Amino acid sequence: MVPIISVVGRSNSGKTTLLEKLIRELTARGRRIGTIKHHFHGPVEVDVPGKDSWRHRQAGARVVALASRDTLFIVGETPAEWPLQQIAHQTLFDVDLILTEGFKSGPMPKIEVNRAAQNLPLLCGPEDRLVAVVSDRELPVSVPRFDLEAVGPLADFIEREFLAGAVRSRVDVLVDGRWLPLEKDTQEILARVVRSLVGDPRDLSGGPPIELRIHGTTP
Amino acid sequence: MVPIISVVGRSNSGKTTLLEKLIRELTARGRRIGTIKHHFHGPVEVDVPGKDSWRHRQAGARVVALASRDTLFIVGETPAEWPLQQIAHQTLFDVDLILTEGFKSGPMPKIEVNRAAQNLPLLCGPEDRLVAVVSDRELPVSVPRFDLEAVGPLADFIEREFLAGAVRSRVDVLVDGRWLPLEKDTQEILARVVRSLVGDPRDLSGGPPIELRIHGTTP
Repeated sequence: MVPIISVVGRSNSGKTTLLEKLIRELTARGRRIGTIKHHFHGPVEVDVPGKDSWRHRQAGARVVALASRDTLFIVGETPAEWPLQQIAHQTLFDVDLILTEGFKSGPMPKIEVNRAAQNLPLLCGPEDRLVAVVSDRELPVSVPRFDLEAVGPLADFIEREFLAGAVRSRVDVLVDGRWLPLEKDTQEILARVVRSLVGDPRDLSGGPPIELRIHGTTP
Repeated sequence: MVPIISVVGRSNSGKTTLLEKLIRELTARGRRIGTIKHHFHGPVEVDVPGKDSWRHRQAGARVVALASRDTLFIVGETPAEWPLQQIAHQTLFDVDLILTEGFKSGPMPKIEVNRAAQNLPLLCGPEDRLVAVVSDRELPVSVPRFDLEAVGPLADFIEREFLAGAVRSRVDVLVDGRWLPLEKDTQEILARVVRSLVGDPRDLSGGPPIELRIHGTTP
């Protein structure tokens, strides 16, 4: 399971700008970053008219993928409002950390951007998992506060709190769209049982990656 | 596992146009279609400069997702040259049939488009899984031939051969990027074992969808 942190804040507080800086800084430190942005306003419109993928989608395809050697572009209808962790699990490949822009109502730890010029209180209340604020003014919170401009200390904080010592799990399980933390022993048993049942001829203690999907029962 | 059919043919033979018609026809018949297009020429460039997702990617994010209520847009680097089935399994959501444009070298059944005006032989040889040709001329093949213009009979053929009586599997397994066909009994055992190990409190014979990823051993 990859750590996910949500960058939240009011409109025009500078979330995207902070994210850009943070992505740049963490990427320079060798971290592979994935991002998910919550898009509120109507359908996502990114297809380019006249391109083939747009023609497939115009013709009625629910999901269209365009695959080159090392880049994948997908646009499509999701089954319903997919949970953040489902999007992360299924579509964000080979990353060390996922940063989201928005998803304030999600269950993830949050960094809130607050700008003195807007003179508005924090969005996050005590029930939100606020782990840090980024602001150009003092705020009545007990979590660390970081500067809006210098992103280095914030990157240090993220590395220390979320990435240092993070051990890649052997097995990731998503139940009904949510990651389920599993003991190391349970992961080991799951891996061996599945490898033995799918008849992988190689050593049960290792081998190729396996993806398993158990379809839900339609009520 | 969702059936996958590859539409192949020479450059400018009319693959995209045929696909458009086919997607439209099958969608009108109530089928949910996903498509995958092979893109040979350099990186996929679909992001819109100035949009936030483009800013995340420009800053160095490997994968960027934009999620609205019912649409998901993803652009990113794939771990390597991902197999077709991996793309299908992980990223094409809730579809009944996947049509690909290209992927001639892939293992999927193929429909080849051939146009008299180009006066070129078929691309597919005896080693390819050619199941039909779509052409405006006679061709020396033993598979059914369909008209370039009237797509109804081709849609009938696809429904009859690939969709009729297709039973949705209970468990899908992807080993090293390839779907593994499993006996119904094995699927049942897998589902029950996994449900019992992940501690789902509901009846072992049913319940919510589960995604399981067993990471490969790095050699």
